[in-house]
Amino acid sequence: MSKRSDQITLVAGGAGFIGSHLCRALLDRGETVLCLDNLQTARPSNLRLLERDERFEFIEADIVNPLPLDVLERTWSIGRVYNLACAASPPQYQANPEHTMLTNVVGTDHLLRLAERADARFLLTSTSEVYGDPEAHPQHEDYRGWVNCTGPRACYDEGKRAAEAMAFDFARMERTDVRVARIFNTYGPQMHPDDGRVVSNLICQALSGNDITIYGDGTQTRSFCYVSDMVEGLIALMESEQVQAEPINLGNPNEISVNELLTHILALTGSDADVVHRSLPVDDPRRRRPDISRAQRLLGWQPRVSLEEGLAATCAWFAGEIDGGRVPRPTAPDRVRASVA
Amino acid sequence: MSKRSDQITLVAGGAGFIGSHLCRALLDRGETVLCLDNLQTARPSNLRLLERDERFEFIEADIVNPLPLDVLERTWSIGRVYNLACAASPPQYQANPEHTMLTNVVGTDHLLRLAERADARFLLTSTSEVYGDPEAHPQHEDYRGWVNCTGPRACYDEGKRAAEAMAFDFARMERTDVRVARIFNTYGPQMHPDDGRVVSNLICQALSGNDITIYGDGTQTRSFCYVSDMVEGLIALMESEQVQAEPINLGNPNEISVNELLTHILALTGSDADVVHRSLPVDDPRRRRPDISRAQRLLGWQPRVSLEEGLAATCAWFAGEIDGGRVPRPTAPDRVRASVA
Repeated sequence: MSKRSDQITLVAGGAGFIGSHLCRALLDRGETVLCLDNLQTARPSNLRLLERDERFEFIEADIVNPLPLDVLERTWSIGRVYNLACAASPPQYQANPEHTMLTNVVGTDHLLRLAERADARFLLTSTSEVYGDPEAHPQHEDYRGWVNCTGPRACYDEGKRAAEAMAFDFARMERTDVRVARIFNTYGPQMHPDDGRVVSNLICQALSGNDITIYGDGTQTRSFCYVSDMVEGLIALMESEQVQAEPINLGNPNEISVNELLTHILALTGSDADVVHRSLPVDDPRRRRPDISRAQRLLGWQPRVSLEEGLAATCAWFAGEIDGGRVPRPTAPDRVRASVA
Repeated sequence: MSKRSDQITLVAGGAGFIGSHLCRALLDRGETVLCLDNLQTARPSNLRLLERDERFEFIEADIVNPLPLDVLERTWSIGRVYNLACAASPPQYQANPEHTMLTNVVGTDHLLRLAERADARFLLTSTSEVYGDPEAHPQHEDYRGWVNCTGPRACYDEGKRAAEAMAFDFARMERTDVRVARIFNTYGPQMHPDDGRVVSNLICQALSGNDITIYGDGTQTRSFCYVSDMVEGLIALMESEQVQAEPINLGNPNEISVNELLTHILALTGSDADVVHRSLPVDDPRRRRPDISRAQRLLGWQPRVSLEEGLAATCAWFAGEIDGGRVPRPTAPDRVRASVA
């Protein structure tokens, strides 16, 4: 199944952080993009940039609900379906855990059924959170994870595991051509300043001169992938003819501690703010690093942007947003709560 | 919250194997029982026995769909909600994996919302399958499991994990008083002869004189709980004032191999049928034994029926069904497929 140039690429969650970069890259490839988003966690400015392109269309919709007629009536024109729709940071996805679970299960089901009807390719963005607080390191796709299915992160972690289960059942039953990306931590311009994730938190706090919050002792590790690398990986996965029905890790295997990340950010921003330590959230993973050998082998993909380059671009973008008044003085993290539609 | 005698106990999945025994026990306790079932895997004769009781009412409904008005209009009379609704044997739940997942997630959500509105207690029957093919033995509730979220059992295993996640989110947000039982292998009269589970398969094959099918070499272990013990455990869990929001294993810790089970059944049935070995299904667990210390401590519950007693009663029941023509000559297991509504 090759994609015809007159087909529509549907991006659910296309107004979010990674979603808006993906839409931009798809437009740059010449694709016609139909973006669905419930605007739960999206920045309106992400959309305004995209809407300048006549091959971009936005429909406000929550995939938990039946898909709008505006989408269904174009079923036969849809060639690709990317599902990036779900709040991805703990304060946001925990604000309404029932909605988070249903977004992943019911929303994914709606999009799988659409892809089935359209004979379109379907890509689910799953997450490194399916590995929970991993005992295996680095995390290979065959590792089954260490997820607490009764805890406060389960609405997201188990929701994504359930979405993967559904997607692979559609593939096993030959209902849809399915691809599943397990996305590790990603950062870059257009992140939501209030989403509670470590890169945006630290940069905004450093730039604003507020105290800087580190959860735990800062020795927990993450592996941060710059958003342009992630988007290239997603498109490579969607367009690959090599991939069988199997999940693929996408992320940057360069693992650093939160303390090291902070050192980089303080240097880039010239901040001398004080550091305040808070207790680690429940079930927070201690280590996180993708084994990307499968993506390298099947997609010929690996990240290209170094942490130094990526952080410099991200800090510059946040500085511009703060100077322009588009990013307010950061809220203390324990008061951050997303509004949920 | 104590249950008033004029309240209704709703049992979703109440026409199934464990469900029908539970309805019988609740009626014997003097409760008024409203049974919902989609009759996907139920034996109609289970219902006929229950319907002789005037405090029993059956409504055919699939909890994947919005609950019927017949239920909703009695919301304020409902004091207890038991959710046993989901096909539980692999051939049955794999016949329509999408429906299995939605039953667990959307169906559970519908019942949780009903319980919330009714200020009723809610009990989810989860499963030992949340532990997958366990690396810890016996399985304690704190063990996080070894589940393949991309495999052919995931629609059930991950569906139940997702249902647990939702239930505990309702508890954490103080929306509903929630109890979660993780049920291990259960057997007894009124099992479906065609459900593809090991006890019913072996007994029906032994009684019919067909070849007896053992998957793998028969050294894989299970722990079999007689159904009356299981039902006592479920009611004790529902009525307990001691339980916090935490899952509780219910099962019999007496672990035996499938070969030992066969030896018991051959002796009880006097069968000398030949044994045929077939390959193990994908992701079939090798070992399974509940740690029931939490149930013992919090509920004062433990199984009372020995395997010998339980198997004798079960063999006698199946013999009567076969003599009465109510159980047909068993189908070869690899041709067993449930019809799905």
